[in-house]
Amino acid sequence: MIRLIVLIALSTFISAAANAEQVLARDIGIAPGILPTGKTNTIVDVPGVKVGQLTKVAGDSIRTGVTVVLPHGNNLYQHKVPAAIYVENGYGKLMGLSQVTELGEIETPIALTNTLSVPTVANALISYTLSQTGNETVRSVNAVVGETNDGLLNDIRGRHITQKDVLTAIDSATSETVMQGNVGAGTGTVAFGFKGGIGSSSRRLPAPLGGYLVGVLVQTNYGGVLQINGMPVGQQLNQYYLKDVLDKGDADGSVMIVIATDAPLSDRNLKRLAKRAFAGIARTGASFTNGSGDYAIAFSVADSTIRTPARRARISSVDTLPNGLFSPLSQAVIEATEEAVYNSLLMAEDVTSLDPVSGETLTVKALPVEAVKAMLATARPAD
Amino acid sequence: MIRLIVLIALSTFISAAANAEQVLARDIGIAPGILPTGKTNTIVDVPGVKVGQLTKVAGDSIRTGVTVVLPHGNNLYQHKVPAAIYVENGYGKLMGLSQVTELGEIETPIALTNTLSVPTVANALISYTLSQTGNETVRSVNAVVGETNDGLLNDIRGRHITQKDVLTAIDSATSETVMQGNVGAGTGTVAFGFKGGIGSSSRRLPAPLGGYLVGVLVQTNYGGVLQINGMPVGQQLNQYYLKDVLDKGDADGSVMIVIATDAPLSDRNLKRLAKRAFAGIARTGASFTNGSGDYAIAFSVADSTIRTPARRARISSVDTLPNGLFSPLSQAVIEATEEAVYNSLLMAEDVTSLDPVSGETLTVKALPVEAVKAMLATARPAD
Amino acid sequence: MIRLIVLIALSTFISAAANAEQVLARDIGIAPGILPTGKTNTIVDVPGVKVGQLTKVAGDSIRTGVTVVLPHGNNLYQHKVPAAIYVENGYGKLMGLSQVTELGEIETPIALTNTLSVPTVANALISYTLSQTGNETVRSVNAVVGETNDGLLNDIRGRHITQKDVLTAIDSATSETVMQGNVGAGTGTVAFGFKGGIGSSSRRLPAPLGGYLVGVLVQTNYGGVLQINGMPVGQQLNQYYLKDVLDKGDADGSVMIVIATDAPLSDRNLKRLAKRAFAGIARTGASFTNGSGDYAIAFSVADSTIRTPARRARISSVDTLPNGLFSPLSQAVIEATEEAVYNSLLMAEDVTSLDPVSGETLTVKALPVEAVKAMLATARPAD
Amino acid sequence: MIRLIVLIALSTFISAAANAEQVLARDIGIAPGILPTGKTNTIVDVPGVKVGQLTKVAGDSIRTGVTVVLPHGNNLYQHKVPAAIYVENGYGKLMGLSQVTELGEIETPIALTNTLSVPTVANALISYTLSQTGNETVRSVNAVVGETNDGLLNDIRGRHITQKDVLTAIDSATSETVMQGNVGAGTGTVAFGFKGGIGSSSRRLPAPLGGYLVGVLVQTNYGGVLQINGMPVGQQLNQYYLKDVLDKGDADGSVMIVIATDAPLSDRNLKRLAKRAFAGIARTGASFTNGSGDYAIAFSVADSTIRTPARRARISSVDTLPNGLFSPLSQAVIEATEEAVYNSLLMAEDVTSLDPVSGETLTVKALPVEAVKAMLATARPAD
Repeated sequence: MIRLIVLIALSTFISAAANAEQVLARDIGIAPGILPTGKTNTIVDVPGVKVGQLTKVAGDSIRTGVTVVLPHGNNLYQHKVPAAIYVENGYGKLMGLSQVTELGEIETPIALTNTLSVPTVANALISYTLSQTGNETVRSVNAVVGETNDGLLNDIRGRHITQKDVLTAIDSATSETVMQGNVGAGTGTVAFGFKGGIGSSSRRLPAPLGGYLVGVLVQTNYGGVLQINGMPVGQQLNQYYLKDVLDKGDADGSVMIVIATDAPLSDRNLKRLAKRAFAGIARTGASFTNGSGDYAIAFSVADSTIRTPARRARISSVDTLPNGLFSPLSQAVIEATEEAVYNSLLMAEDVTSLDPVSGETLTVKALPVEAVKAMLATARPAD
Repeated sequence: MIRLIVLIALSTFISAAANAEQVLARDIGIAPGILPTGKTNTIVDVPGVKVGQLTKVAGDSIRTGVTVVLPHGNNLYQHKVPAAIYVENGYGKLMGLSQVTELGEIETPIALTNTLSVPTVANALISYTLSQTGNETVRSVNAVVGETNDGLLNDIRGRHITQKDVLTAIDSATSETVMQGNVGAGTGTVAFGFKGGIGSSSRRLPAPLGGYLVGVLVQTNYGGVLQINGMPVGQQLNQYYLKDVLDKGDADGSVMIVIATDAPLSDRNLKRLAKRAFAGIARTGASFTNGSGDYAIAFSVADSTIRTPARRARISSVDTLPNGLFSPLSQAVIEATEEAVYNSLLMAEDVTSLDPVSGETLTVKALPVEAVKAMLATARPAD
Repeated sequence: MIRLIVLIALSTFISAAANAEQVLARDIGIAPGILPTGKTNTIVDVPGVKVGQLTKVAGDSIRTGVTVVLPHGNNLYQHKVPAAIYVENGYGKLMGLSQVTELGEIETPIALTNTLSVPTVANALISYTLSQTGNETVRSVNAVVGETNDGLLNDIRGRHITQKDVLTAIDSATSETVMQGNVGAGTGTVAFGFKGGIGSSSRRLPAPLGGYLVGVLVQTNYGGVLQINGMPVGQQLNQYYLKDVLDKGDADGSVMIVIATDAPLSDRNLKRLAKRAFAGIARTGASFTNGSGDYAIAFSVADSTIRTPARRARISSVDTLPNGLFSPLSQAVIEATEEAVYNSLLMAEDVTSLDPVSGETLTVKALPVEAVKAMLATARPAD
Repeated sequence: MIRLIVLIALSTFISAAANAEQVLARDIGIAPGILPTGKTNTIVDVPGVKVGQLTKVAGDSIRTGVTVVLPHGNNLYQHKVPAAIYVENGYGKLMGLSQVTELGEIETPIALTNTLSVPTVANALISYTLSQTGNETVRSVNAVVGETNDGLLNDIRGRHITQKDVLTAIDSATSETVMQGNVGAGTGTVAFGFKGGIGSSSRRLPAPLGGYLVGVLVQTNYGGVLQINGMPVGQQLNQYYLKDVLDKGDADGSVMIVIATDAPLSDRNLKRLAKRAFAGIARTGASFTNGSGDYAIAFSVADSTIRTPARRARISSVDTLPNGLFSPLSQAVIEATEEAVYNSLLMAEDVTSLDPVSGETLTVKALPVEAVKAMLATARPAD
């Protein structure tokens, strides 16, 4: 009999073999870039944005979950937000792509989960939307669901996420804080050969540049040759893509990135913002391998850009940031994405799982925080 | 209590109020273009292609279904086919887009259904794939599911399609024939204000041009100003988009197109083929409105292009049709798509349904075949 | 010695062997669609839009020209217009694509010419822009130049268009009327085996739908199986693509489409508008062959959308038509494009030219207007 | 009178105020990544690839040039190479984009130059192609020309590059070596506030992974917060984007990347390769600002993929690397691009120029090699 213990937004009990330390990158001196962070240094710094997570750890083999991002607390179907999705490498099962691209908007929460649970999670978002007050006659819903493949540590073929899990995650969404590490959709992910997870970070532009916030949340499950703020961590720990070419080892996996901003960007400029997040991913040493499904979803919460029923019914006047003022936002999203990845790694813990197909037990270790701190101490004495 | 009578691949009992006549376009002299058809004038003329359909008509309000197209009879996950998806207007919920685009291949059957049943159908394709012999360790499946919105005639919010329905459709797939009209995913669709449905057609290139087959299957649910082989049918029947501008009536809906060929096309040229199908749609009088989700999926079954396990493991030599020989295939797909649409309309029958939200009963009439025949007789005496 | 007789915007003397009649489609009862035209039924119905043309016919072999479209009469570099380019088939040399796509705007006149003269024409647009008052410090100019290949009737390898020709065309631009047929960039083009050329048409939406204008200008040089308002003209005149499959004859060529509107469309919706123009092309019987370079460029002249220096310097409020009101514009652009093509053919005249490579003389006949009128009379008695 | 001293492929006399030292990155211990280089560590390591450059320094204000890359030494129009262009940020004037995308091939040399000289350089490539033996009947040429804006140091409005300059660069092309720094199209460029230029690098895959070569050439003219192999050079030298937010300083510019490989990649996989080059750019600290025109052009020289006249005439068998073997090439192109950028900076020298518009004289200093070496010594003692 399988014991199902669902741990909601609670990452600390995931493994008995948890590593000793969880830290945020900035707490140990890793602060990529030049711009200041927002108040909590997470995506919920962007006004109104909420994050909810459901962590599912059960038995020997279930280590997965759901993470949802809500652009605002109102009925999203009625108050759609301008949005864009950028596909860096499309080996993935993200739902909702073509409609977001065509219409430049999102009308459901954004959900992240594991690869084979995408349909169930999409069904849950549809259920959620159909049941909301004001949506009684809605017959078309574009659910946006992203995923990475946690099949190394999770019995992914079992498709253990339920619609109820998703609704629980939505109900738990808060604008207070974002749990990071082995939580939600990051419960079973692996990045650079270490335990990956959920990470978040934010940046605030200086006032003369508009003072806008850019918040990022990542689900890390990809590979490459890990570098942290430029430091060759992967090589120094002797764990990196192509280390042993004879095994033709792959660095596949995926990364999902969700980006929020309060800058009044057109959907075209939101797509440019989403694209630039991958410069942050690149700086972590990603190899952008064939089998990695790499996507970024960006939306604006600027009040005048919300597509309310009134604005969808007639010509309306929409605040728009001109192309010429876009550049600082690009810098912001790059920095926040890079830092969010480090947070996902540094907040993760070791995970052990039994593969029900092979019958073998696997432990993926967290990035050793002490070793990283040691490298920081020696490598950058004058920084 | 709802009585559920599932009618598999059986379109004739759909409505007590069925119209008098169902014909294929070619049977009444509508033969768009200049190229000859294949043997059955359907998509299954392309060697190895199979189509299965599940029609679900139940109670007062359930009129929906599933249509599946199998590129070949082998394990598709192991023997992937080169493929491409073209998005004409992305207001739709098609799944699988980014991976097909990135890798240029399809690894599951292609399924069509109603808008809100996409996740369930995708889940079924995943179940189907995971359970196939040879796929025991598969942990990633890119289900390709298209849809149109049959919410006018179907209780779409009820999401009545089950995973079992999809598996039944797959099991019933045959390369013998294709049912057309009110069947499968076309059970509850509406096109140009008339009853739409499933249609199919094919073309064979002359031998000096390679003798290739191009087969098309459509699920019609879109609008505009219907013209049939150039004849202004919509205007003559006084039923067309913008007929009454004061009601700002819309012609929304959608069209899904599946295209098969045995020409050895690269995925790039398959995308060009998919794109050209919309020239056929345009010739039927489509208005390509905002809310129409218009997609075409094209694949090749040419033996040397199949991505077998062996060919995916090392460099292999792939037969490729050069760009310079592409053009006749373009003509073929345009013609077959146009004729497939006419077949979908002429084979459809009246449908009556009770809207569970409004409580009103609606009947959508089939295109009146007699009237079309009368127009053909007078309009083109010398043709 | 080559005698150079430059005929500016004057199509009537092009060939001594001119056919008997030039008509506009609507004058002989060909009026595609359901919407009314603008005042002149050309692109200059859209307020402020100007068209200038330079026709170059000289010696035995030079039959080419330039057509320019100016979105408005002000300095375009300083007062950019929102715009988009859609590529239906990219076998062409259009310049300016990536920047228009990235920034959603056009900053020079739009010029059309022959394939090998694109660089010279682009140079001319740069010269024009650099020399305008107010542009003294400009160091970057995105010239938008489209083309079709008139090499069948024109000594295209000679690259006879000069920068001065382009400036002359710009100087001659007017919002009064648009010359059609063998003029400007359409001087040497061929469509469906008949003489092609420049054509134009417009549509005005009914007042309840906004009353917006959509104007279209085409340069026709493509092929297929000509149909006019649904009438199979190509087949009846025994001139169509694949008529003789043994010669593997091609229908290559190209079509350039310029679209203007006064509806306040975002650049995303302008791209959707541009895409839909090809539904109009499809209805003329285009085969969309491999070698056809098919592009549409759409822009808005709505005052509040113009990207003035002030609006490019800070966040500004931009009028935007919501997606839900887009559909009637789609119908308008389809109809206007179809009619513009017919005008380009019906206004064209026979052209004779000596091919300097082969030494052979070729005459391309205009579409026989009398024959078309005869077909109209018999084919549609009851229309 | 302007004295024109054309310096062909000769970077050393560009400025009397040249900095003391020019080095290659690897010579001072900067070796990004984990893969070995090819023999010369430049793009010409890829068999058959040739590079030619024309440097134009004249008078007080002309500092520009042309760089050409030839995929092979044969007639390119007749022996086209599979190719793709990826647009990272389309604020640029690259020519040839849509046809390369549509057909997946390149048929001329690839030329890089300054922004306003693109049309002249394209004209030269057309002249070159039309005049080649075997091309006597060619009437359509898709010239591929990229650019960055050297208008800060060059009298760009003067458009000083001539067609002859381009032909001279082509004639000088060699597979022996690649000049780097202030040469060719990099003569007047600026990157990260330092003098940019031409850089190159290569990688060779280990034999078990195919042993393929990937070569990269960059023209650097972009900005951001420079980091070299992870070291925060821009911040330590107090020169970086957004250093002073009050001046709203921009980091605009551009980067052009040319990528060659002998792996038999489909055009789709070449596009994926091109896209991944920007991960290398990201690692140098690029901010990917609004006004940067960032493009990568990739082609294969694998013999069986060359589109010879014979292969373009009928179905042929083409060697193709499957998706599953793509990943090591991704790692290779990222590394080579990063190193090529460092080479472009470290090989550049100070340049002084008089701006003919403002009348002011500007000197852009080269990256101080001694300072970089000092940072390397202190920052990475244990590396």
